[in-house]
This record gives sequence, structure tokens and C-alpha cells, in this order.
Amino acid sequence: MALAWILIAGFLVMFMQAGFALVETGFCRAKNAVHTMGMNLVIYPLGVIGFWLVGYGLMLGGVDRWPQLGSPVGSAHEVGLTIGGHTFGLFGAAKFALVSVARDPSSLAMFLFAAVFMDTAATIPTGAMAERWKFLAFVIYGLFMSMLLYPLYGNWVWGGGWLSQLGAVGLGHGHVDFAGSSVVHMTGGVTALAGTMILGPRVGKFRRDGTILAMPGHNLPFSVIGTFILAFGWFGFNAGCTLSPNDPRIATIAVNTLLASSAGALAALLYVWSTVRKPDVGMACNGLLGGAVAITAPCAFVGPASAALIGVVAGLLVAFGVTTLERRFRIDDPVGAISVHGLCGAWGALAVGLLADGTYGDGWNGVAGPVRGLVFGDASQLAAQAIGVVTNAAFVFGASYGFFWIVERVVGNRVSAEVEWAGLDSLEMGSEAYPPG
Amino acid sequence: MALAWILIAGFLVMFMQAGFALVETGFCRAKNAVHTMGMNLVIYPLGVIGFWLVGYGLMLGGVDRWPQLGSPVGSAHEVGLTIGGHTFGLFGAAKFALVSVARDPSSLAMFLFAAVFMDTAATIPTGAMAERWKFLAFVIYGLFMSMLLYPLYGNWVWGGGWLSQLGAVGLGHGHVDFAGSSVVHMTGGVTALAGTMILGPRVGKFRRDGTILAMPGHNLPFSVIGTFILAFGWFGFNAGCTLSPNDPRIATIAVNTLLASSAGALAALLYVWSTVRKPDVGMACNGLLGGAVAITAPCAFVGPASAALIGVVAGLLVAFGVTTLERRFRIDDPVGAISVHGLCGAWGALAVGLLADGTYGDGWNGVAGPVRGLVFGDASQLAAQAIGVVTNAAFVFGASYGFFWIVERVVGNRVSAEVEWAGLDSLEMGSEAYPPG
Amino acid sequence: MALAWILIAGFLVMFMQAGFALVETGFCRAKNAVHTMGMNLVIYPLGVIGFWLVGYGLMLGGVDRWPQLGSPVGSAHEVGLTIGGHTFGLFGAAKFALVSVARDPSSLAMFLFAAVFMDTAATIPTGAMAERWKFLAFVIYGLFMSMLLYPLYGNWVWGGGWLSQLGAVGLGHGHVDFAGSSVVHMTGGVTALAGTMILGPRVGKFRRDGTILAMPGHNLPFSVIGTFILAFGWFGFNAGCTLSPNDPRIATIAVNTLLASSAGALAALLYVWSTVRKPDVGMACNGLLGGAVAITAPCAFVGPASAALIGVVAGLLVAFGVTTLERRFRIDDPVGAISVHGLCGAWGALAVGLLADGTYGDGWNGVAGPVRGLVFGDASQLAAQAIGVVTNAAFVFGASYGFFWIVERVVGNRVSAEVEWAGLDSLEMGSEAYPPG
Repeated sequence: MALAWILIAGFLVMFMQAGFALVETGFCRAKNAVHTMGMNLVIYPLGVIGFWLVGYGLMLGGVDRWPQLGSPVGSAHEVGLTIGGHTFGLFGAAKFALVSVARDPSSLAMFLFAAVFMDTAATIPTGAMAERWKFLAFVIYGLFMSMLLYPLYGNWVWGGGWLSQLGAVGLGHGHVDFAGSSVVHMTGGVTALAGTMILGPRVGKFRRDGTILAMPGHNLPFSVIGTFILAFGWFGFNAGCTLSPNDPRIATIAVNTLLASSAGALAALLYVWSTVRKPDVGMACNGLLGGAVAITAPCAFVGPASAALIGVVAGLLVAFGVTTLERRFRIDDPVGAISVHGLCGAWGALAVGLLADGTYGDGWNGVAGPVRGLVFGDASQLAAQAIGVVTNAAFVFGASYGFFWIVERVVGNRVSAEVEWAGLDSLEMGSEAYPPG
Repeated sequence: MALAWILIAGFLVMFMQAGFALVETGFCRAKNAVHTMGMNLVIYPLGVIGFWLVGYGLMLGGVDRWPQLGSPVGSAHEVGLTIGGHTFGLFGAAKFALVSVARDPSSLAMFLFAAVFMDTAATIPTGAMAERWKFLAFVIYGLFMSMLLYPLYGNWVWGGGWLSQLGAVGLGHGHVDFAGSSVVHMTGGVTALAGTMILGPRVGKFRRDGTILAMPGHNLPFSVIGTFILAFGWFGFNAGCTLSPNDPRIATIAVNTLLASSAGALAALLYVWSTVRKPDVGMACNGLLGGAVAITAPCAFVGPASAALIGVVAGLLVAFGVTTLERRFRIDDPVGAISVHGLCGAWGALAVGLLADGTYGDGWNGVAGPVRGLVFGDASQLAAQAIGVVTNAAFVFGASYGFFWIVERVVGNRVSAEVEWAGLDSLEMGSEAYPPG
Repeated sequence: MALAWILIAGFLVMFMQAGFALVETGFCRAKNAVHTMGMNLVIYPLGVIGFWLVGYGLMLGGVDRWPQLGSPVGSAHEVGLTIGGHTFGLFGAAKFALVSVARDPSSLAMFLFAAVFMDTAATIPTGAMAERWKFLAFVIYGLFMSMLLYPLYGNWVWGGGWLSQLGAVGLGHGHVDFAGSSVVHMTGGVTALAGTMILGPRVGKFRRDGTILAMPGHNLPFSVIGTFILAFGWFGFNAGCTLSPNDPRIATIAVNTLLASSAGALAALLYVWSTVRKPDVGMACNGLLGGAVAITAPCAFVGPASAALIGVVAGLLVAFGVTTLERRFRIDDPVGAISVHGLCGAWGALAVGLLADGTYGDGWNGVAGPVRGLVFGDASQLAAQAIGVVTNAAFVFGASYGFFWIVERVVGNRVSAEVEWAGLDSLEMGSEAYPPG
């Protein structure tokens, strides 16, 4: 039954691709709708193939079994570095293209489950970098993300790598991320930040006189429906990570996901309503998503009240982040992905270190006893969480910035101003989203 | 496994929010698309938080265990009234904000499952009251519905309250509503009727010369896709109510849901086709939904042929109700929600009392023996069903009418004619659904 | 648990109706959007009722039990023809309207599962025949498909009929189609071909001077989202066919579905990109669907690498087929359904005969030992696959061509040129998809 649970959860996560496509395309202009939809469509198969060939092996090639799934996998191998008697994992080196595990149901199910998580991370930058990203550069990025960047950080937290081993040097249970606030969302959000910095803002966004041009999306209903699809799939995202339908914690996880996303939506809605006097539906969508991002790491380790609190903070972070990035830092993120996934991802990872209440996680990362955050008595867990967040910010930002920098020099990341003015659909993609009758 | 079943079913029900959003927005005009989408988006988190804080405790605070889910819950308490030696339940008084059951997986799973049912009821009036409802008044309504109105009637049928206890005074198994024809749909539809009466019709709908202005929705594809999403989620809605994947009745329930919704769609389509000579796709959507609403109460208690019959009647009721409400009673319901959910909800509840065939429900509401309707020999069951329907019509209508009446005097329910003419999106919401390039 | 698994899988397959509706409507013009959506909406309930009354009995009335589901069904009866001592099944003759099995959970669950598969096949021609099909003729077709055509071929492969019995005359395990490449997709695609030939191309498509008018669809985002919904539901389609969540092969099946659809999308994208210099998002959608169609028959019998290969071939077949049908054969298929479902369906069925690797299928169709294709040593399996494909091409094409020919003479298949020019929505359906404010 555990296989069926993981697969059903994985199907729900896969469906989130449709949610991202709708949220992002709705927040973009009609002249770039094919391009935005196209990136969201193509990242899915592109990521899957890249992850199949290389990424899965790097990320989870070192795991020799998932206890919930039974039988061990023979071929596992993790490459590590030995420091002071401890061997810290760096990357997996087995199971590439699933060759050695083509007959092992556990490895196959985990491949599917891990692949759709990777694709969630990989599709996040397509929102922040929308309306100006050259399609070829995007395709190269898709391979980089699925084959190298995501798998490496993922290995460190979920594949037996060094961030998961920090408990061995006294830091709580090591970096704990139940379903991916840091592994998936922060990785996507930080990559989006680096990409947006390299790309620069859309033509006309920031004017010489200091004013900022609002560039409203062309289809708010798309964004709302996309948000619902994401919220739907998120239950699979979080509850699936128990890897078993028999773990009663799935109820806690699902309720926390519901409450945090709800609280995030209301916090963002009410905050903006109180400041600009209008109920901003788009911001409510992003608040809901921010709450979901933030509860993703702590969802199994906290109770309902903490979940709601985490959601409220996330909703405010989104509203604050979107405004600040644009006004203060002149970062042009058409959909708010950096705030929703990057900021709230970091907050979610830290929230484990603050609010984990000691009712779950006995034996997590090989450390005895349940996971406790600062409020429940273990400051070292917060340190482990902070190290994971700082590592993500430094490594993912550095690696992706370097990657985009190289691409910039080789093929270029950005379409020409002519293409951008005309819309990427007609000149870059060769077809329009809504051609006249 | 029962937890996983309830949660998966609950996720499907949650996804119905996207279906309602699409159906309603598709049937409304483009100038109100942000407003309609916005209500459907916001009711979800708003209802969840209201239900978490208060509603769940009122509705299910008196239930001390769900047999399918195992362990009892210590804190249950139901407040009742003792009449002639019988104590009839009125409302629960425990589990508020989940505080006392924050560690109980059964209560948490049931909270999620019950919350998404509540949100289904709560989102129904947003369709009937669309295109003219002040957003602030809608938000206040959302709290009233999720915290008070829905939980009270819900308690009487599902939380151990007095309608479920009518068997003790000889009325069959008491009011039996398997998955919510009366609890969810009729409650939503009746509230929609009261709200629509207080709000009045859209400006220009009913002309002085007695003619009625057709106000076609702006996106029929949205309504069709929303219908499919609702039909998809409905399988979780109905089959999930077994609370167990091991009850073989889930097959009967799913097939009945399929047949009744199909029969409803065809009946409505053919009826309108035969009268106005065109196949009305929007009416087929509403017929499908009406059939699904009607089978929701009896889905576990009847066989396939009865399910199809129930669906046919529902489809005709929808076609008849939509026309009659508008032409005869001058009620302006842009999406047909009052007929689909109110009329068909009442019909579904009564259908249990007519057609329950004595093959299921042994011990339901504490009464020995299976549930039988009038046709299968138990007229008293029909009486219990009718009492539930009349109670819903009287209590829900009265309470919601009173609520809207008070809101009318305090903040007002309706936007100004100026806002309505311009469209609620630009003036009430501050953003447009489809801004030009 | 097996019932719950089949039902959940069936719900996912049912949801594919929304995917077809979006893909097809997105690829059609705005003036025919109500008509295209309407066909996709109505085929669902229409097919269900037709299949309930007649089709299910013809198709699966001869099956007396599904081993995974337990208890035998008493009423099964298959009508066959005895040739040379072997009795070859032709059609079932029991369980009509579910009357004799109204209390049997296994039969009911299998009815729902089989009905949504039938509806998948039945909705395929609505794409190829879109923008010119008279609604009444379409309704008649819906009954023909769900009551007769699909059930007959389905019986031969899945209901105990003669194609499944070819093992008895030495042809491998008989025709093996795990989840429906031939039964569902090729049947739909071949019927679409016959219908398109009878209907003829859309007015203005093929000009007298030999040039071809591009008629781009009106909403590419719809098509992309529809593709994601189909890809999501496909996991239920393929993995559900184990009829049990406890068969560890579900992991293989799901991964193969993921890899083949991904490989198909990339192959089609890259092929077109390399030829016309633009990344064609619509073609990537169709490539993804083609890969999914092709892996549907072999998904349980091959490993990940073969799945990717099958997907690559399918993606190329789609790109080639769409172009060739239009340019060479002057077949006007607005959505590419004939190539995606017909060509790739045939390829998928043949792929079993080529690449089945002998790791699964022991006892399939009553033949001992696992299923092996030509590459793994059993040429006779390829023969059985080819016979099934040729039978489908001959029987389904002939029967549907004959059916459309008769309808042509009785009510006519095609709307008038006047209606077609104006758009089917305003004159045939009586309502517009996107009426002005």
C-alpha cells in the first residue's frame, strides 16, 4: 500500500504543474501567454528526462532503502568527504538512468515522487523570469536544474548528504525539511532571484523618473484556478512525504497544510486591504501559496495553532516581499515567485527550528528522540535549520548565478527588445495564444 | 488506511472549490470576473479559519468517536434539550480551535473532511448573489456561514443533534443524509435564496415592461470545465462519507453518483432541446450538477436504476426551477444555484425516504435494521426526511434572511448602482480580470 | 482495498474528460467553442447511460470474475463461435443495465472503471470532427460508440473475446493491451478517421490552388492545461489497470507512463523546432499525449529505457502524422487526434509485441509464462499484436464508416456552410462562448 500512497501523492504533485502554468500565465500579459505556458509545459518532460538520466542518481543514489517501502536497494553509493572522523555526504553516484534499479518498485516509485518534486522547483523560476527569457536559454536551464543544481542540494538534505548529518556534530537532528520548504521552494525561489538579476527587469518596468509601471496580468481567473490546483496538489506534496498511508501523522500534516495556507491567504488579503483599501485577489492567491510553502518543512512537526501562526507570518512576508523587492531592490518578478517560494521557503525551514514541538520525528536523520525547536527546548535545531537556509542562499544563488552568467556569454538569456515589445509569442514562439477568429 | 481514504476524499472535495469558481465565473459577465473569482477564492480560507475556531466545535464537538476511525475522543460534549425523557442535541460544545484534540488523528482528519464540506455549502450563495454583492458583506457572511449557520444544521443531522435522533420517536432512522443533499447543498441553496431576495436582482435584469434581459455569462468553457471538476470531486464527496475504503458500498456510491449526474445532464439537455430547439450546454451542466446534488443523500441506500431515476427528476427540476424562479418569482440567480443546490438538495433528501431499498444502513443513527423508504415499506422514514427538509427550509432561510437583514442595516449588502454598472472589478475590487495588453 | 484503488483510478480517468475538452476547444476557433465544449460535456453522460444500458453487458458481460476483486459474478455469459474445437468469444450477453449485478461491488466498480475508459475513446472523434459536426448526429454517434462499437472490440481484447484467445492457437498470450492503446485510443482514433473522411474538411481549409489554410486554435493555454489534466489522469488510466494497489508493478507502470510521455513531448518539440525553427508548444502537447497513448499497452511489460524509446517514436509519429495526414491525404483533423490516438495507439499495441521483456504477465489471458516480445524471443506475440491492430483498423474503420454513411443519409452529419461560416455556436448551439459584456 505504501507504493500506492506515494504514487497517488506523486500524481497530485505532478498536477501542480498545471497550477503553476495557470498562476504564472494569468499574471503575465497576453502577448507572452504561449511563452509562459510553453515554459511550464516543457519544463515537465525536460526535467523528468534530465532527472532520470542524471539527477536522481546524484540526489538519491546514496540511499540504500526507504524503511517505509521495505526491501533495500543494492546499488546505493554516496560520495562523501571525511572531516575529523565524520564522513559527510556530497552526492550520490548510483542508479543513473535507473539502470541498476529498473526492477525495484521502491526505487521506481521514489523516482517518480522525487521527479515531480524536482519539477516543482524547476518551474518556479519560469514565473519570475517570464516575459523576457529566451526559450533556448530556458531549455538549457531546465537541464542544469534537473541534472545538477536541485539534485545536489536535495542530496544534502534528503539523500544522506551533509546537511542531514549535522546531528552528528550536535546540531539537533541535522537540517530537517519534511516536504521541501528549503529543498524545493527555496531552491526554486533563490534560483529565480539569481536569474531575474541576470535578466534584468522587463522593458519599461522601471522608468527613468523612478516611477514603476504596473504590468497587470492578462487573466486573473487563470491565476485563481492555478492557485486552487496548487493547493489541491499540495496535500499530496506534504502528506505524501510520510511515504506511508499508515502513519497517522498524515492527518496532522493535511490539517496543518490547510490551516497555514488559509491563514496566509487571509493575512495577505487583510494586510493589503487595510493599506490600499481594495481586496487584492492576486495577493490573496500569493498569500495562500506562501502559507503553503512555509508549512511544507514543519507540517509534520507542529500542531494546528502553530501552523496557523506560520501561515500568518508567511502571508505578511509575501505582501511585504513583493512590494519591497520591486520598490526597494528594483527586482522585476512578474508573479511574485521570489517572495512566495524563496522568502517563505526560508521562513518555513526556520520555523521547524523554532516551533517543532517534540511530538514527531524520533530517529529522524538517525538521531534519537523527537524533533524540537527553540521554543520547545532545542536551540541547536534552529542552528541546523539556519545552516541549511544559509547554505541554500549561498550555494544555490552562487551556482545558479554562475550558470546564468555563463549562458549569458554563450547563447544569451534574454530576447531582444524588439521581440519583447512585440511579445515573445509572435517572434520567439511563432504562434499566438489567442489569435483572432 | 481509513485516515488516508478520508483525506484523499477530502482533497477531492477541496478541489471542488475550483469547480465552483469556474462554473460561477463563467456564468457571470467579464466585468465581474475578479469579484466572482475573488469570492470563491476567499471563501475557502475564510471558511476554514471560521470553522476551525468555532464551527467544527459546534457541529461535531458532540461526537466522541467515529467507529470507522477507531479510538474515542475524550473531550466530546453535546448540549441538548430534554423533552419527554428524550434529550435532543442542539449543538456541540467542545474541540473549538482543535485545542483539545490537536493530537488526535481521527479528529484532525474529520476536521479537514468536514471543513471542505462546509466550504462547499458556503460557496454556493456566491453564485446566486454574484455581480452585485459588496465584498465586505460577503466576508461577514463567510464567517456567519462557517461559524454558525452551517454547523448548527450540520450538528442536527451529522453531529448527534435532534434530526438524527428522530428514530427515537419512531421516525425511521431519523433524518438520513448520507453525504449532504440537505446538510450541504440545500443549506447553501436556501441561504442563496434568502440572500438573493435581500439583494434584489441585478440592475436591468427585470424591465418595467415585464420583459427579462438575458445576461449571458462571459465564458462558457469555464463553466463546462468547472462542471467536470465538480463531478470529479463529487466522487470524493460521496464515496468518502463511508469513512472507510473497506466498505464495499463505495462501489455502489460511486456508480450511483455517476449515473444520477449523467441522467440529470441528459434530462435537462433533452428537456430544453425539445422546448427551445437548441442543445443548451449550460443547462446540461446544471442538470449534471443537479443530479449529483440529488444523489448525494441517497447514494448509499439505492441501486443503479433508482439513481438514474433520481437524476432524471433532478435534471427536470433544474430546468423547471431556473425558469420558474426567474419568470414567476423574479428571483435573479445568475448561475442557477438555488435550483441546482436548493431544489435538488431537497429532492435528494426526500428521495431517501422514498427509495432507500433496505440494503444498507443497519444501525444508522443508532436504529437497528437497514434504511427503507416509502416504496420499500417504511413511510416513517419519509416523514423523517420531510421534517429535515422543512427544518432546513425554515431554519436556514429564517436565520440567513435575518442575518442578511441585519447586515443590510449595518454595512449594506449591495454595491452602488454606479459600481454595478461599471463592473465590480474596477471599482469594488480595484483590478480587472482581463486588462488590455 | 482493491475497490478503492479502482475507483480512485476511475475518478482520475473521468477527470480526463476535462482534459479532452480543454485540449480540443483550445485548438478550435472561438466561434465553435460552445460546440466543442458541448460535445465533450455531453459525451460523458451520454456514453455513461448508453454503456450502462447496453455496452457494459456486451463488453464485460462474459467475465465471471476479476481475480483481484474476489467473489465471482453469477450471471456472466459470453456468446462465441466454435471453430476447430475452439470457442472464440464474440460478445457478452449479461449484466445489461447492471440489473443482475446491482448488488455486486466488483461488477459495479468495474462498470465505473470501464465506463470512463469507454468515454475516453468516445470523446476522441469530437476533436477530429470538430467545427462542422451536427449536434444531433454527434448524439447518435455517442450512443453507437458507447453501446456497440467500443464494447465489441473491447470484448475481444478485455472481455474474454477472440483476440484475447489467440494464445490458444499459439500466438503468444493472445492480443495483450494492458490499459488500452488499441482498445481505447486506436478505436477512438480510427473512428475519428472514418468520421473525418465522411465529414470532409472545414470550409476553406484546402484551397483550389493547393495551398492549405492554417486555422489556429483560439486558446493555446486551454490546450496546455488540458494536456496536463490528461497526463494527470493517465496515471490512473494505466496504473489502475492492475486492479489492485498491492501489485508492485504499479511503480513500473507509473514511471513508464511518466518517461514515455516526457520523451514523446521532447521528441515532437525538438523535431519541429529543428525543422521550422520555432518551439511549437501545441506540438509538444500532442507529442506528450502520443507518448502516453503509446505506452498505454506496454506500460506493465517493459522497463524505463524501453518506455522512453517508445515515447520518442510516438512523438516523432505524431509530428509526422499530423503533417502527412493534412498535406498528403488532405484529412482535416483540427486537433491531431487521428495521429495522437490512432497512429500512436497502433504503435503502442505493436510495441508490446516488440519490447515486452518477460518480467510480467504470467498467466495473462490464461497462457502460462510471462509476456515476451520479438526482441525478447517470442515472435508470435508480435503476430498477436499485429492481428489486433489490423482487426481494429479493419473492423472499427469499417463499422464506423458504415455508421456515419447511414447517418449521412438519414439526418446528415454536417452543418450547412452558412452555419459553419457563422460559427456553430450562434446557429447550431444557440449561444456564444464569449458574448460581449
